[in-house]
Amino acid sequence: MTPRDAYAELLRRSRERAMLASCLELLSWDELTFLPPGGVAFRGRQMAHLAGMLHAAATDPVLGELLDCASRSDLTADPHSATAINLRQWRWSYDRRRRVPRSLVEELADVTTIAQQVWAEAWQRDRYEEFLPWLERLVALKRAEGSCLAQGGDPYDALLEDYEPGMTSAQLADLFGELQSELKSLLALAGDRRRKSDGGLQGSFPIDRQHALACRVAEQLGFDFHRGRVDTTTHPFFSPVGPGDCRITTRYSETDFREGFFALLHEIGHGLYEQGMDPEWYGTPLGEAPSLGLHESQSRLWENGVGRSPAFWQYFYPEVQRAFPEALRNVSREELVVSLHRVQPGVNRVRADRVTYDLHVLARFELEQALIRGELAPAELPDAWRNRYRELLGVVPRNDAEGCLQDGHWSAGQFGYFPTYTLGNIYAAQLLEAARRELPSLDAAFACGDFHPLREWLQRHVYSRGQKDTAVELIERVTGQPPHVAPLVRALQTSAG
Amino acid sequence: MTPRDAYAELLRRSRERAMLASCLELLSWDELTFLPPGGVAFRGRQMAHLAGMLHAAATDPVLGELLDCASRSDLTADPHSATAINLRQWRWSYDRRRRVPRSLVEELADVTTIAQQVWAEAWQRDRYEEFLPWLERLVALKRAEGSCLAQGGDPYDALLEDYEPGMTSAQLADLFGELQSELKSLLALAGDRRRKSDGGLQGSFPIDRQHALACRVAEQLGFDFHRGRVDTTTHPFFSPVGPGDCRITTRYSETDFREGFFALLHEIGHGLYEQGMDPEWYGTPLGEAPSLGLHESQSRLWENGVGRSPAFWQYFYPEVQRAFPEALRNVSREELVVSLHRVQPGVNRVRADRVTYDLHVLARFELEQALIRGELAPAELPDAWRNRYRELLGVVPRNDAEGCLQDGHWSAGQFGYFPTYTLGNIYAAQLLEAARRELPSLDAAFACGDFHPLREWLQRHVYSRGQKDTAVELIERVTGQPPHVAPLVRALQTSAG
Repeated sequence: MTPRDAYAELLRRSRERAMLASCLELLSWDELTFLPPGGVAFRGRQMAHLAGMLHAAATDPVLGELLDCASRSDLTADPHSATAINLRQWRWSYDRRRRVPRSLVEELADVTTIAQQVWAEAWQRDRYEEFLPWLERLVALKRAEGSCLAQGGDPYDALLEDYEPGMTSAQLADLFGELQSELKSLLALAGDRRRKSDGGLQGSFPIDRQHALACRVAEQLGFDFHRGRVDTTTHPFFSPVGPGDCRITTRYSETDFREGFFALLHEIGHGLYEQGMDPEWYGTPLGEAPSLGLHESQSRLWENGVGRSPAFWQYFYPEVQRAFPEALRNVSREELVVSLHRVQPGVNRVRADRVTYDLHVLARFELEQALIRGELAPAELPDAWRNRYRELLGVVPRNDAEGCLQDGHWSAGQFGYFPTYTLGNIYAAQLLEAARRELPSLDAAFACGDFHPLREWLQRHVYSRGQKDTAVELIERVTGQPPHVAPLVRALQTSAG
Repeated sequence: MTPRDAYAELLRRSRERAMLASCLELLSWDELTFLPPGGVAFRGRQMAHLAGMLHAAATDPVLGELLDCASRSDLTADPHSATAINLRQWRWSYDRRRRVPRSLVEELADVTTIAQQVWAEAWQRDRYEEFLPWLERLVALKRAEGSCLAQGGDPYDALLEDYEPGMTSAQLADLFGELQSELKSLLALAGDRRRKSDGGLQGSFPIDRQHALACRVAEQLGFDFHRGRVDTTTHPFFSPVGPGDCRITTRYSETDFREGFFALLHEIGHGLYEQGMDPEWYGTPLGEAPSLGLHESQSRLWENGVGRSPAFWQYFYPEVQRAFPEALRNVSREELVVSLHRVQPGVNRVRADRVTYDLHVLARFELEQALIRGELAPAELPDAWRNRYRELLGVVPRNDAEGCLQDGHWSAGQFGYFPTYTLGNIYAAQLLEAARRELPSLDAAFACGDFHPLREWLQRHVYSRGQKDTAVELIERVTGQPPHVAPLVRALQTSAG
């Protein structure tokens, strides 16, 4: 077999795995949107079976032979060539997956499917004790997975690699430590000025009109409905089901349109990234994001950078007011924009303002490290959660539903996921600063409802690149600086001012 | 390996295939409900890949060896035992599938996925010429499949076996020939009496209220929403996604509630059958219907036998009137029931009355035989369609959208499917006559909204039996007679009187 034949076979297998992965994605999207409760148990076994098949395909020893054959050739001569990049990423992923036994992969897929349903019920009814045995089982399984992956190293760092390849918890601790002290200063500053109520923005916002508005806004920002859809769920999420099929969901509050609106902008940011990738490379590393943090930077950029800018509202506020004429009759555009930058520590991450948001993430980052490293027992989590919230945010949740049950990530086995939210904020601020530097009329375009220049810029620098660079490399190349918190702090200072 | 080990392995593999089949079912349900247009091409390839995997699993020569080993043992001593039945049906299916090459299976899955979308567009825009090349390709592929299966026999009969195992086109022609002359007499009779307009039932029926009513009715009839859901689509269908997950869809007309209501009753009938099967046997022949005709008998029984009975409306009409007080203010229950038995030949199968309905099916049965046997070229279909409608029903569609494009079955590769509609009507009438004979107070129960006695009876005689008998055996055992048209003709005579 020639190296070129080996590469072609690797490509074929990679695309075949993508077809199975897309089935899993749809099974999972469906579980979160339309699956009747009676179908949950079978869905768990079904997803476990598919995850097992996918794992077997991704760890087939033949891949190792093909990789050896293709890599020892001129296909890797130029490390920036498509072939070299795909081969490098396939190798990384193959070596990594080979370390985890199929039985563990299947057990995790099965347990997480059921645990997510158990969590959702426990959260709704504020019953941490019902979720506890599942969390214990999940932590044990994820520790086992982390140990397999780490090969003597730190299991949490090994899990983190699933979401942010190349990043360690020590690097994150440095970055986040600096951010924490900046945020605490900003919080103290805001505390002195906290006065304006935002009661004017509470009112009656019919869901159907919110959904119609959401679809209009999505279209204007460039989301392609021919290749995607927008639905309603308990927890907003995005799901790249397949090429030409990117789905996002949001949820609406009947008393405050901002909740659904910003959840939508967030998911749109993810959606634009997916829709901007080269379909030619679907099913290969060149058709995928290098990290979740970078993916998250795209949602944060649209949600916070664009969506909270005065220019954005110059264009959109008249339309929003027309959609809710009664509720917003007495609210000026300036009042709305001010409300979007209001700082008010609370117990809920999803509803948090921009300044306190990352403090919520830091708490989770610390707690999940302690869980995985065995320094914190799941039974002790509610207390630890309350303590950490008191210290970081000065607030204490009244119950577990408002506390450690508020997020579903751990029930889905996602340990190492939370830090990517804050990384996303850091990357997003760096990217938007760079874009504004290169395109001085960016905000003038927003004010006219023109988001094309920004999308074009992102298309060139981010969307089209797949895994050509790591997230850190991309940030450095595009912004001229390694990941650092100054641009985020500057953005928060400006908007707080 | 002992015969018992072989059986256990066959069982495990059967259930594993069911997991993949359930993925395919969901991919297909999603295609018909939520898939964005840009995702269609990939979905086609994806379903082709899965269908290919499923075919490979179902034709693995190891199955042949396992079947040989398990069958030559006391596991088949009692032909009515669960083991013997499963082994018999597995063997039948294995031998059958082995005759079709995987490449043909994959090509069919791919082509039908795209052809269904092409058909939907061609139908909406009345462009037969756009669908024609796809129909040509489909007919060629299905002829090829039929030839592989028939091994020298008739390719149409071989395809028919997919839907109605054990039935031949000659047997159907006998049964349908008798029915055709009876229907023509009934039609002539009705023609003399056709007077009453049904204008009173046209009005304004808000979709959301229709959907709320549909869900209420579904629940009352016994459809379990914990293990199923009801959605809206262009074409009503049911989809047994998995155990505990049976989905049905309907469509509503804003000017006539009966359309969505009866489409719902029809799909509910399918749904109750699926929900009534023993979940223990899911993924094995004992957890599946013996034929599509028998499955269809369940939808027809609820749609026509129950749903058009005066007793049914004695209970439901007040509720329907409350849901649409303006539109139905001046319509009495008697007028409604009379309207449900009105005979009026038309060009549309789905909207046809009970007397002419089977004439629509007979036309399709004849035409699809001619297509598969090469006696009719797809290019000649529109003319042949018009001619046959003129002869059978005395009406001619104004265009192809109203004519040969009205159904999507052929675009999905379903040749041999249509006759099961009429078989379903025949079986349903026989079953309901038998149930009324055994349970004289059945209609009195309907009038009180109690559908439990009928469901119990069906549970015992039909739902719980899986493939213990063939459809014909089941009909004979339960009704005491082989399939015959007299009960259907009697039912039509009574309601026409």
